[in-house]
Amino acid sequence: MTYREDVEGLDASILMHARVWEASGHVENFTDPMIDCKQCKARFRLDTLAETLSEKRITKTIKEFKEQFAEDPDKLNKLEEAFAKADTLEDKFAEALESKDVAFNLLELLNCPQCGTKGSFTSPRSFNLMFKTFLGPVEDSGNVIYLRPETAQGIFVNFTNVLNTSRHKLPFGIAQIGKAFRNEINTKNFLFRTREFEQMEMQYFVNPEEDGKWFEYWKGKRMEWYKSLGMSEEKLRFHDHPEDKLAHYAKTATDIEYEFPFGWGEIEGIHNRTNFDLGKHEEFSGKSQKYFDDETKEKYIPFIIETSGGVSRSFMAFLVNAYHEEEVKGEQRIVLRFHPKLAPVKAAIFPLVNKDGMPEIAREIESELRRHLRVFYDDKGAVGRRYRRQDEAGTPFCITVDTQTLEDKTVTVRERDSMEQERVAIDDLLTYLLKKLR
Amino acid sequence: MTYREDVEGLDASILMHARVWEASGHVENFTDPMIDCKQCKARFRLDTLAETLSEKRITKTIKEFKEQFAEDPDKLNKLEEAFAKADTLEDKFAEALESKDVAFNLLELLNCPQCGTKGSFTSPRSFNLMFKTFLGPVEDSGNVIYLRPETAQGIFVNFTNVLNTSRHKLPFGIAQIGKAFRNEINTKNFLFRTREFEQMEMQYFVNPEEDGKWFEYWKGKRMEWYKSLGMSEEKLRFHDHPEDKLAHYAKTATDIEYEFPFGWGEIEGIHNRTNFDLGKHEEFSGKSQKYFDDETKEKYIPFIIETSGGVSRSFMAFLVNAYHEEEVKGEQRIVLRFHPKLAPVKAAIFPLVNKDGMPEIAREIESELRRHLRVFYDDKGAVGRRYRRQDEAGTPFCITVDTQTLEDKTVTVRERDSMEQERVAIDDLLTYLLKKLR
Repeated sequence: MTYREDVEGLDASILMHARVWEASGHVENFTDPMIDCKQCKARFRLDTLAETLSEKRITKTIKEFKEQFAEDPDKLNKLEEAFAKADTLEDKFAEALESKDVAFNLLELLNCPQCGTKGSFTSPRSFNLMFKTFLGPVEDSGNVIYLRPETAQGIFVNFTNVLNTSRHKLPFGIAQIGKAFRNEINTKNFLFRTREFEQMEMQYFVNPEEDGKWFEYWKGKRMEWYKSLGMSEEKLRFHDHPEDKLAHYAKTATDIEYEFPFGWGEIEGIHNRTNFDLGKHEEFSGKSQKYFDDETKEKYIPFIIETSGGVSRSFMAFLVNAYHEEEVKGEQRIVLRFHPKLAPVKAAIFPLVNKDGMPEIAREIESELRRHLRVFYDDKGAVGRRYRRQDEAGTPFCITVDTQTLEDKTVTVRERDSMEQERVAIDDLLTYLLKKLR
Repeated sequence: MTYREDVEGLDASILMHARVWEASGHVENFTDPMIDCKQCKARFRLDTLAETLSEKRITKTIKEFKEQFAEDPDKLNKLEEAFAKADTLEDKFAEALESKDVAFNLLELLNCPQCGTKGSFTSPRSFNLMFKTFLGPVEDSGNVIYLRPETAQGIFVNFTNVLNTSRHKLPFGIAQIGKAFRNEINTKNFLFRTREFEQMEMQYFVNPEEDGKWFEYWKGKRMEWYKSLGMSEEKLRFHDHPEDKLAHYAKTATDIEYEFPFGWGEIEGIHNRTNFDLGKHEEFSGKSQKYFDDETKEKYIPFIIETSGGVSRSFMAFLVNAYHEEEVKGEQRIVLRFHPKLAPVKAAIFPLVNKDGMPEIAREIESELRRHLRVFYDDKGAVGRRYRRQDEAGTPFCITVDTQTLEDKTVTVRERDSMEQERVAIDDLLTYLLKKLR
């Protein structure tokens, strides 16, 4: 189902030519600074090393550094310059570790987080996060290809294809859901940072003069989307990127963050990518990426407003957001309060007892509902226990066939969150559920 | 929507540990025999080289071989042995090229298909078709991982996870749609053989004593599926694999083939994989893959009936199957006769003229239908031309708002194949279309 006339779908390839990633800047810029411990060979990301250190450790290291360079105002100035870029102690230290003027001196004073050896780190090096492989049987540099680290470039290189076949006018978007791959040095926090993950991206092509308007529009729309699927308002916030932290392609950027049990984390980024990407692809391919505006008779490379959501991360956010423990009549109840649209099973069907014709009726209801909804049949154990099992799976509705069903062809429908029960005629059941599930 | 209670969905990862592919036999067996031309460095698949040769060329080469080895009955016998395995001349020669006793002698007599040099081929070598990359920043053999060459193994290694969480009893299936990657030496025939492609696989786990029954069941079901979506019966056939051609894991195997313009080609394989895969994974992981049968109190590794369909190949088959050129009133009409379920656009809406309130009504119809169906709005050019454009895109229904609409709130609905038109009340339009599209 398509609700928006102005957004097309796309499924671009995962393996893409190296030239695409040269044009996009990924071959040169998509790197993490990396250090090795010479002693135990463990490898660390320099830009996240500060996170692993205690406040005490950081304070001590700064003190030692200042003592060592007491006679060297230049070094001390470089340290202060790095510190000025951030507010918290941890962030200040992280900035210093990324400053090439003082990083190595600070590393000399630190112990390896794995083996404890002091001053055993190599100098920082750049490590490209793209997974590399070879096309065809010859493993030489001419045959290097990369697994896409973002679905966005697949959309950019198909921009003129989509434009010419769909006959859209600006503004319009191209959206894609698919896997992306980043060879992270350190993965962490369950699904939050993995090497293989799923993205849902949309690139919205606009007149360069309207970029600010559309950036604000999509910022609002995307936040609304998470809320409309039941994510708690107080666990969501925007995080605008400060100007000196913007990615090389971005004019403005904001993250939608969710407060996970381990802290705030980005679940989607909204970026004004300007005409950077299409401009680069035009330069590298020699094919015009310009749009001809019928009304103003102008020709220009569109600006792009990108909404780049993490499917894996959002999935985890929806999951922890739904998880609740509560007490019901002196017993603990675990319930996943998924929005009905997200619940993997929409309704469960229980015969109260496994006799008197109840299983037959329950099976009939099941096979009728199954044509339209994902349902689950359960006839094992007391009904109370069956309710609890469905609560844990987040099933919004449980339908029980009981003695009264045999008399008047009605069933009880029990709602997951309120635990309230209603009697509904079997004939009205599908309509009843579809209405509630909308 | 789920119509089958006995099949679960899965989305396994693309990057999988090397041990999985050792267990499955892919590291050792998933190879193609490959030869190089020493002169021009071009690389060829030995097993498909015969396809590139003319009948005359093959006959001449066989003659030369027989002359060369006239005094060597052993060599001549080996050639006859290889020939006996096939029926056609091309297939006989292909068999001989795969026989290690005569392959090199035959290659000595052949010219390179690219540069024409005679006898310049290397000896055949095995080339593994899996794409290889490295997990993390260290490129050594301990960090090698592979892109999956089939989605099936992702299902096998998740078998006990799905069994334990879904509480299924045998028989039941696990299905998955997703990308797979094979580093083919030579790609060909558009989407037919590409290095990145989409699979739709289902693995159906059964009692070993019922494998024959379920193999036949799925064979029938899958053929029915292609026909139910409009694939021409005379362009579909089964191709059973002879016993000596079976893959290392298969007890019985059949292909569903479609007759493409370039010849018959496999679009899906149905395989009895026995307990080979789960047995291997049990052996390599040390984790039991056995199923406990409640009724018979037996414990065994299930047999697997696999339906392995190519999404990319089927897509191409549906596309060529739908393509028709015909003459209508002296003009050529190109029409894609897609089954309505496969048509990318379900209905197009045209205002007859761009005035008198027609565009407004047409836009209202569009936005109402768009909530349920993929639709396209077109107000450019004569209605006849707009029909043709939709015929070429395979749109099953065109809706025109005309003068009569203004009077009685009806529209014409024109069906793509018959080109017949009906008047339908705007209020009944959605129900009318949904019924026709089922």
